[in-house]
Amino acid sequence: MSTVLSGLDARLPDLERLYVDLHRHPELGFAETRTAAELARRLTADGYEVHTGIGGTGVLGVLRTGPGPTVLLRADIDALPVRERTGLAYASTATAVDQDGREVPVMHACGHDMHATWLSGAAAQLAAHRGEWSGTLLAVFQPAEEAGGGARAMVADGLFDRAGPPDVAFGQHVTPGPAGWVLTRPGALMAATDALRVTLHGRGGHGSRPETTVDPVVLAASVVLKLQTIVSREIAATEAAVVTVGSLHAGTAHNIIADEAVLEVNVRSFDGGVRRRVLAAIERIVHAEAQAAGAPRPPEMTELATFPVLTNDEAATARLTEVFTGHFPEGRVWEAPQVTGSEDFGELAAAAGVPSVFWLVGGLDERTVLEAIAAGRFETDIPSNHSPLFAPVLHPTLRTGVEALVVAAMDWFGSPAVA
Amino acid sequence: MSTVLSGLDARLPDLERLYVDLHRHPELGFAETRTAAELARRLTADGYEVHTGIGGTGVLGVLRTGPGPTVLLRADIDALPVRERTGLAYASTATAVDQDGREVPVMHACGHDMHATWLSGAAAQLAAHRGEWSGTLLAVFQPAEEAGGGARAMVADGLFDRAGPPDVAFGQHVTPGPAGWVLTRPGALMAATDALRVTLHGRGGHGSRPETTVDPVVLAASVVLKLQTIVSREIAATEAAVVTVGSLHAGTAHNIIADEAVLEVNVRSFDGGVRRRVLAAIERIVHAEAQAAGAPRPPEMTELATFPVLTNDEAATARLTEVFTGHFPEGRVWEAPQVTGSEDFGELAAAAGVPSVFWLVGGLDERTVLEAIAAGRFETDIPSNHSPLFAPVLHPTLRTGVEALVVAAMDWFGSPAVA
Amino acid sequence: MSTVLSGLDARLPDLERLYVDLHRHPELGFAETRTAAELARRLTADGYEVHTGIGGTGVLGVLRTGPGPTVLLRADIDALPVRERTGLAYASTATAVDQDGREVPVMHACGHDMHATWLSGAAAQLAAHRGEWSGTLLAVFQPAEEAGGGARAMVADGLFDRAGPPDVAFGQHVTPGPAGWVLTRPGALMAATDALRVTLHGRGGHGSRPETTVDPVVLAASVVLKLQTIVSREIAATEAAVVTVGSLHAGTAHNIIADEAVLEVNVRSFDGGVRRRVLAAIERIVHAEAQAAGAPRPPEMTELATFPVLTNDEAATARLTEVFTGHFPEGRVWEAPQVTGSEDFGELAAAAGVPSVFWLVGGLDERTVLEAIAAGRFETDIPSNHSPLFAPVLHPTLRTGVEALVVAAMDWFGSPAVA
Amino acid sequence: MSTVLSGLDARLPDLERLYVDLHRHPELGFAETRTAAELARRLTADGYEVHTGIGGTGVLGVLRTGPGPTVLLRADIDALPVRERTGLAYASTATAVDQDGREVPVMHACGHDMHATWLSGAAAQLAAHRGEWSGTLLAVFQPAEEAGGGARAMVADGLFDRAGPPDVAFGQHVTPGPAGWVLTRPGALMAATDALRVTLHGRGGHGSRPETTVDPVVLAASVVLKLQTIVSREIAATEAAVVTVGSLHAGTAHNIIADEAVLEVNVRSFDGGVRRRVLAAIERIVHAEAQAAGAPRPPEMTELATFPVLTNDEAATARLTEVFTGHFPEGRVWEAPQVTGSEDFGELAAAAGVPSVFWLVGGLDERTVLEAIAAGRFETDIPSNHSPLFAPVLHPTLRTGVEALVVAAMDWFGSPAVA
Repeated sequence: MSTVLSGLDARLPDLERLYVDLHRHPELGFAETRTAAELARRLTADGYEVHTGIGGTGVLGVLRTGPGPTVLLRADIDALPVRERTGLAYASTATAVDQDGREVPVMHACGHDMHATWLSGAAAQLAAHRGEWSGTLLAVFQPAEEAGGGARAMVADGLFDRAGPPDVAFGQHVTPGPAGWVLTRPGALMAATDALRVTLHGRGGHGSRPETTVDPVVLAASVVLKLQTIVSREIAATEAAVVTVGSLHAGTAHNIIADEAVLEVNVRSFDGGVRRRVLAAIERIVHAEAQAAGAPRPPEMTELATFPVLTNDEAATARLTEVFTGHFPEGRVWEAPQVTGSEDFGELAAAAGVPSVFWLVGGLDERTVLEAIAAGRFETDIPSNHSPLFAPVLHPTLRTGVEALVVAAMDWFGSPAVA
Repeated sequence: MSTVLSGLDARLPDLERLYVDLHRHPELGFAETRTAAELARRLTADGYEVHTGIGGTGVLGVLRTGPGPTVLLRADIDALPVRERTGLAYASTATAVDQDGREVPVMHACGHDMHATWLSGAAAQLAAHRGEWSGTLLAVFQPAEEAGGGARAMVADGLFDRAGPPDVAFGQHVTPGPAGWVLTRPGALMAATDALRVTLHGRGGHGSRPETTVDPVVLAASVVLKLQTIVSREIAATEAAVVTVGSLHAGTAHNIIADEAVLEVNVRSFDGGVRRRVLAAIERIVHAEAQAAGAPRPPEMTELATFPVLTNDEAATARLTEVFTGHFPEGRVWEAPQVTGSEDFGELAAAAGVPSVFWLVGGLDERTVLEAIAAGRFETDIPSNHSPLFAPVLHPTLRTGVEALVVAAMDWFGSPAVA
Repeated sequence: MSTVLSGLDARLPDLERLYVDLHRHPELGFAETRTAAELARRLTADGYEVHTGIGGTGVLGVLRTGPGPTVLLRADIDALPVRERTGLAYASTATAVDQDGREVPVMHACGHDMHATWLSGAAAQLAAHRGEWSGTLLAVFQPAEEAGGGARAMVADGLFDRAGPPDVAFGQHVTPGPAGWVLTRPGALMAATDALRVTLHGRGGHGSRPETTVDPVVLAASVVLKLQTIVSREIAATEAAVVTVGSLHAGTAHNIIADEAVLEVNVRSFDGGVRRRVLAAIERIVHAEAQAAGAPRPPEMTELATFPVLTNDEAATARLTEVFTGHFPEGRVWEAPQVTGSEDFGELAAAAGVPSVFWLVGGLDERTVLEAIAAGRFETDIPSNHSPLFAPVLHPTLRTGVEALVVAAMDWFGSPAVA
Repeated sequence: MSTVLSGLDARLPDLERLYVDLHRHPELGFAETRTAAELARRLTADGYEVHTGIGGTGVLGVLRTGPGPTVLLRADIDALPVRERTGLAYASTATAVDQDGREVPVMHACGHDMHATWLSGAAAQLAAHRGEWSGTLLAVFQPAEEAGGGARAMVADGLFDRAGPPDVAFGQHVTPGPAGWVLTRPGALMAATDALRVTLHGRGGHGSRPETTVDPVVLAASVVLKLQTIVSREIAATEAAVVTVGSLHAGTAHNIIADEAVLEVNVRSFDGGVRRRVLAAIERIVHAEAQAAGAPRPPEMTELATFPVLTNDEAATARLTEVFTGHFPEGRVWEAPQVTGSEDFGELAAAAGVPSVFWLVGGLDERTVLEAIAAGRFETDIPSNHSPLFAPVLHPTLRTGVEALVVAAMDWFGSPAVA
């Protein structure tokens, strides 16, 4: 029996080369030019109609094999300003200039190199077996998921004008669970994000004469500690919220008291009421802290990004779970817990008004993960996404992600994808 | 009666042009190439034997007019990583790349442009009147006073091998007091400085999953607040100490928890016991805070700079005070309070084993200063050195500083400098 | 049709008098002598075999009406060190001396006066209708639930030796939900508690000479803020934990720096791993903070109380929910959310090795509660248990709690309790 | 040659008994009834006209020996709410109820027992030698120096109506310097004090539900840490200020979030401008912190005490220094540094409009003190006044203080007091 997954084993060495290449050459959001070019090149080689530069650096590959549904498969392709410390032979040493003009290290610390490789592999596999299914496949390589805005930019730039809207959208993310595992859940899977830039104004002066200044470093430090009380005191333990100050920058020299400090704050929530309370508390705290410090003028707060809760369609998720359970070996398909990570994937389906499902694919050695959990050391010993040590194992991670995309698509195209 | 100060009025427009030019083109420590070139050019034009590149970018002008003492006059010439906000027509818009590879704004926020102009003017004046005195003048333009190391570098690079050591050394600093005023004191005038870089190690990860990380931003914030307790709780109110965290940098993005935070700390003290207690307390606090946070490894502390207390020679200061009092109008010469600023000027004289005197020259509008003091708003309303708003008035500041150097030197050369 | 609930309306005025009397005369844990005496008096009058002084101040009433199951109904009876600010006509003005010798205000701020009144009413009602059921009723008035230890003390003092163990145990708690509502859930309903006393050692001295001291107030303040980071940074947002510093005492006068500070810390958790991580983090932080402060010796931590998670028996809860749903009007019986409150009720059933169910009974005006929720102001506007403003409405709260106990018991005695 | 100091050796055992008795029976301010009775009894026995109950518990002894000046000698007699930990055989175990109704330990931790003994001894000595001088002696035992108000209360209650105002006033304080040493200085000797009570309002509730509360413990902790920044950031290092939170009380139990926290704050300053800036900063911080916390209403701040700077009369101090230098062995009379302790002694002389001098008398073993200073461990190893370990050595402390009072008085009475 011929299937669309046949030949995948032989393709894995090439996918591994693609992954290593992408990992070595990470690019920040909206600057994924090298990445996009390579992915487009491969789509073209596989016979796709290819659209590039959508929403900046987004790529769309279209393959029509006959009448039938349109299925959108999406991978995000941007990297992060993290200095890689994995020690891998193919570790990144790249740097880039970020939006604030700072030179920053760059690393695929969230696995989007894996996501892109998965989708490239699935697209190749489905193209190689184009005679075995009928319908339209949209392979979407999306830029700028991390800082947000990539999905929206592609939609705004006419993504769905190129080849029409899909009937369903699928996406996946590599996660620090056991490689070979696939996890999803109906309803809210991933949290809403709100990101803010807070500029605290002090009064600059000489490091030896603090009495002539309002020290923005001390003000910022107090804000950071006070922000901890939002989660610890203002949100019920049975609700979920995260308030992270991801970056804090103030001052240029030890003997100068600067005149401002800049914080970047990231908020996660699942519930609208919780979200509102957290955002209001941040605003209250930031302003009152400035007053406590005698700041010469109020802080400024600007929105950097906002992602809604990622919600999986109930029916489509039930159907997909059944498909996954039928396809993957026993003990590999699980209900996902809610996770505080965020995703703008949902905005693609929302813009098209169609159902979507997002799932997680484990990327770490199974025994290592299970032993860490048993020892109560999972949180401290297993590097999470965005860690400088984040390093998925290639096998069976590569294969699992390609399979998941192919079986999800084939189910809508009317056939199983039998491995 | 001819005097070495005659002709100074006519020279002022040129000095004003020099000051404005230096102010517009500030350069960080050890990078003062344009500044040094212009100052060397002027010395050469005035007939000095000129040595450049001493200790990197230092300049020495030597003028021998006959037998007699050797007098060293010193000005520092480096600027600071501060973004100028004075609104002056000649405000700096310069930037530079600092030692950490960050692009930073640059400003003459500590008045070294004024210091260099004063010494250039005094050197020109003394050269123009070389027939009126006998001895050797060493005009020293020193780099890198701010971060420390400039004086030491010039000495190490053979400053005193060029034209022999001096018999006395003089230096001066512009200060936010009334223009026209000159202040000094015997003994300890300016504080010792110790500057430290503290690197706090966390464990990086995803901004939404703090439980997998050790957040260095929160750790750094706690360190900053705890460091405040050194001055507030561990040092007697009747002793003097300053602990400033001049810069704090951590993180590259809102949704990433970084794996380290870097603080630059500046300590001021006059007393050796106080200094030891403060430094020991910093070390104790930084290490214990890392333990409190569960940091994966201890912090690193490295010395960035160290300046001793600046001590004026008792006899030379008494002699100079008498000279100043005789020269300047009544109500213009004062005993200086001890100030927490620091200076490496003293290292020049210490290396030569000769007496030295350092003094302060007011640089602000007299009425503005006196009214602010009367209103109890001096600290909050008058921008101090290192403030983005620091802006000396040009007159009579320019003239006063030139006169002070000339009368100090002429006293050792055996004559008054009568204006 | 006669039922065990008939006559309850006529009994309500007397129960209201009992409630007001108990509310006016609150007593701290293990000191509930007046309360116990009144409750015993009523049991005796109702024909119960009464055992007093069990586990200190506990009371057991036994009523045997024939063969059949033994049902234990439990109410806790202790009050709290809170100064009442309800403004009620029957507000408490009582004070008592606590375990540390401090005089403290006392208030029934957690509604145990309501619990005692409910059980007294249910016991009376079941006694009045003793001909209508067959079995043994154990009415248990338990001391010292708040500080923990009351349930354990009664068991240790032979509670089950008096009249044998029960076949099932029921308990209930008044909660800031709508009066008339009854809420429960199978499995974990209420959180585990760990309470700790932390003594931080400083070095005392003169308020004007902090440099000779180690200030325990500053140390304690830093500990309090650092403890906030456990929930905000070390526990996943999707897990539940609470760390509260309920009391903090240090110092006797403004001009003396004390030599110690004492904190009482309360921890809530549902998961064993979370609990271990929180307790380990508290220990790590408290010790490192003492080191950061240069404390002369390490802190002491002692356990004040510990409660396990309160877990409702799955089968018994399902059965009871069906009974409640059949008995109460539509819209009054709900699945409870997990709550972070704790209870030692479960220890009674655990000691007997029998199933138990605990439920919540709303005690506030329904419209007030629902409007606050709709406005997103429930947390801020509705006084929670332990608030100085906690004030259940008497109707229908009184009736609902009596009915709930009676129908729960009657179900096991084999009959409905039809109102 | 007979002198008024002859016989002092024989009197020392009795003074030692008095000291030990007072030390064993310390009494808080305005409650020194036993102390006052014993001191009055001794004055009476020595032939003084005795007035008691002045300003509450103050005692005045008057001795007129003929025409001549009136000299006032003053000792304060109140103790402190400190739990003694000296381990002395005569250590206090006393307790008392303070103004807030709290039971507190009581200890002579500031040496007022020594002050009273000194003055009692000097009064006895001068009475025993009444034939050797002519004038009027006023021996004033003042209550309530610690909390302030004692001097003012005695003046308001007609202290100077009893026997007229003095021509000069003298007072002294035992200090942690070498026993046998006497130290004073003209002008400002001791700091101004301002003491404030700050009540921070939260919203009380259940320890497990912080989201329904505004936690006053967290608010108070943040206030305490923020107050540290006043001294560390807002006051010049070359100025002197102390801000101490001497007491902090909040909460009654681990599982209740209280609705308020009460802080007692003590401020020291020498300069009026510094004082105003510190007080304004406290008010600014306290209010802004309450806003940051979302407090339901603003904090309340009330003044507990205020003492002016203690200023020694220039001429009288010069004269007294000469007398001390002539009387005491070489190396025993020193210029005192400014100290941050405060005193209301100056209010007595100010009310009378006469000069006054206050001095310090060492009370510790000389070698112990000097070795600690040499080792840089004076601040950490030598218990200061108000420490639970404060324990003056009796010899030669007792003798030195008696001598100092006698020679000061005798100088004004016209004769030396030759020992």
